[in-house]
Amino acid sequence: MRFLIYHASYHRLQDALAKAAPGVEFVLMDDSGALTLDTRPIALEEAGVEAAWANAEAWFGPAARDYTVAMLKSPGLRWLQSGAAGFDHPMFSQLVQRGVKLTTSHGQAVGMADYVLWGVLDHFQKGAERRAAQAAHRWDRLQFRDIERTRWLVIGFGSIGQGVGQRARAFGAHVTGVRRNQAPHPAADLIAADKDIPGLLPEADVVVLSVPLTPETRHLVDADFLARMKPRSVLVNVGRGGLVDEPALLAALDKGVPEYALLDVFETEPLPAESRFWDHPRVTLTAHASGISEGQALRNDELFVENLRRYAAGEPLLNLADPKDVLAG
Amino acid sequence: MRFLIYHASYHRLQDALAKAAPGVEFVLMDDSGALTLDTRPIALEEAGVEAAWANAEAWFGPAARDYTVAMLKSPGLRWLQSGAAGFDHPMFSQLVQRGVKLTTSHGQAVGMADYVLWGVLDHFQKGAERRAAQAAHRWDRLQFRDIERTRWLVIGFGSIGQGVGQRARAFGAHVTGVRRNQAPHPAADLIAADKDIPGLLPEADVVVLSVPLTPETRHLVDADFLARMKPRSVLVNVGRGGLVDEPALLAALDKGVPEYALLDVFETEPLPAESRFWDHPRVTLTAHASGISEGQALRNDELFVENLRRYAAGEPLLNLADPKDVLAG
Repeated sequence: MRFLIYHASYHRLQDALAKAAPGVEFVLMDDSGALTLDTRPIALEEAGVEAAWANAEAWFGPAARDYTVAMLKSPGLRWLQSGAAGFDHPMFSQLVQRGVKLTTSHGQAVGMADYVLWGVLDHFQKGAERRAAQAAHRWDRLQFRDIERTRWLVIGFGSIGQGVGQRARAFGAHVTGVRRNQAPHPAADLIAADKDIPGLLPEADVVVLSVPLTPETRHLVDADFLARMKPRSVLVNVGRGGLVDEPALLAALDKGVPEYALLDVFETEPLPAESRFWDHPRVTLTAHASGISEGQALRNDELFVENLRRYAAGEPLLNLADPKDVLAG
Repeated sequence: MRFLIYHASYHRLQDALAKAAPGVEFVLMDDSGALTLDTRPIALEEAGVEAAWANAEAWFGPAARDYTVAMLKSPGLRWLQSGAAGFDHPMFSQLVQRGVKLTTSHGQAVGMADYVLWGVLDHFQKGAERRAAQAAHRWDRLQFRDIERTRWLVIGFGSIGQGVGQRARAFGAHVTGVRRNQAPHPAADLIAADKDIPGLLPEADVVVLSVPLTPETRHLVDADFLARMKPRSVLVNVGRGGLVDEPALLAALDKGVPEYALLDVFETEPLPAESRFWDHPRVTLTAHASGISEGQALRNDELFVENLRRYAAGEPLLNLADPKDVLAG
């Protein structure tokens, strides 16, 4: 079996890979897009690639375009390990239509869940007022809000939402997770369905968007959704910008409900310099970066090595995407 | 049985108190320090007070001095419910020497544990750099640190330390709690003793001080302690200022280890305007306010009502302080 891998990723993990899958041969792509097998150049047509790892290094590196082409032009490709959780890139549906198995990575979920707690805590704890007091050398004893006894509505209860739920519950919050599978989950006090959202919004102190963008979820947060939100509530978007009707959100923030928004994603990215979000007093925003923690690459490497071992051993793969979901976009 | 209570506290909880302890008579102190029983004035000598609630309203209110005097001058006093967790105020040892039972409150522990996570997350998540990028309308994708796989050393594993441990573990941290009782605790991966601290410091990413100030813990954090800390580590003090040798901490921060300190308490409070801590780039500081959350009073009220019920019913009280600890200061 031959495996396509970005040269730097291979050299970083060489020992672990040899141990996990001793029989596998690695076809390395360098930064110019050239392929080698056992240090000898090889043409894509002769490489006979059966599986590949589209990790962040390959995907965002100098040979990104060649890497994509190599995956699409390998007729024998049977498995693609992605470095991302989502599959809204059109390449994925092309490959899945050809019968390629797609496995996703959730290495960013841990950092994203930390991010959500960071933003909510900074608002509840009056971070901005505390920093202003410190800068002015003022001994101000500011009362703040606990997370205990608040209600969280986590829309999209996959690995990110579950990470948020697990953390918030440890603070004593009541967590409702919204997802299709209605089975109970230890990271939530309650599991609900999409149709329950309007009824749950008036009770929710924190609303987290961690759901994929699909035709059904586009502009999920519109004027009606926002009008149902609770006074003093917080909205967090770590999903996709398209989940939110941005003019409607700005109008709601101007009126004060929600009281605060933590936004990592936007309809247009990078966020245009003239956007009103940058300077809105009720907004903390970041640059689609809620998942890029130091641990992300480490966790994705570990998952890849384990999945390669499983593939080579003929065992079921972790994080196998449902082709129906991939084709639905 | 007659119970001394601050008038505003009584009126706020009147119904709950009547339900919890129907036979108890309440002696109310108003803001001028005058006492009434059933709306009729009564002299302290005739009030026959058997128990009292030294909550924050009474303790910091306009009649604070009269309230303290009333407790000290009630010869029949048998039980004092404090509104605080500590007992380093000299009044407590005076009363305990006379055989008065002292019960403490931990309503501030929840907010303090939130506070610790707020500060650590803001540093790990690069809060300051993110805010600077937003202010400059810069789309900067900043890599940050996860809490997962970090090691926390929580010195003082009472209600505050346990609250910190419970939260940090939900983020995937490894938590070591330091306390006398060496029994395992669900909020810690490991329980250690004072003597283990020097050996644990070089491995600890986050060190939290949540231990009472005693002759043994004074200047626990000195130059030697700081020299053992790990590069990139964080020091949090929510205990007492006297736990830290402040010039030694400033010298260590100047050298970069610890990388960051979150300080709520100081040897001199309010912190003098000329202190170097105010403007130190590695310090976030607050005004001995890590526990004053909106939920604190609510939780202390609930504890008081429950303890009053227990007292009236002859059941064991919650949070009964060990007289030895109180007398040790």
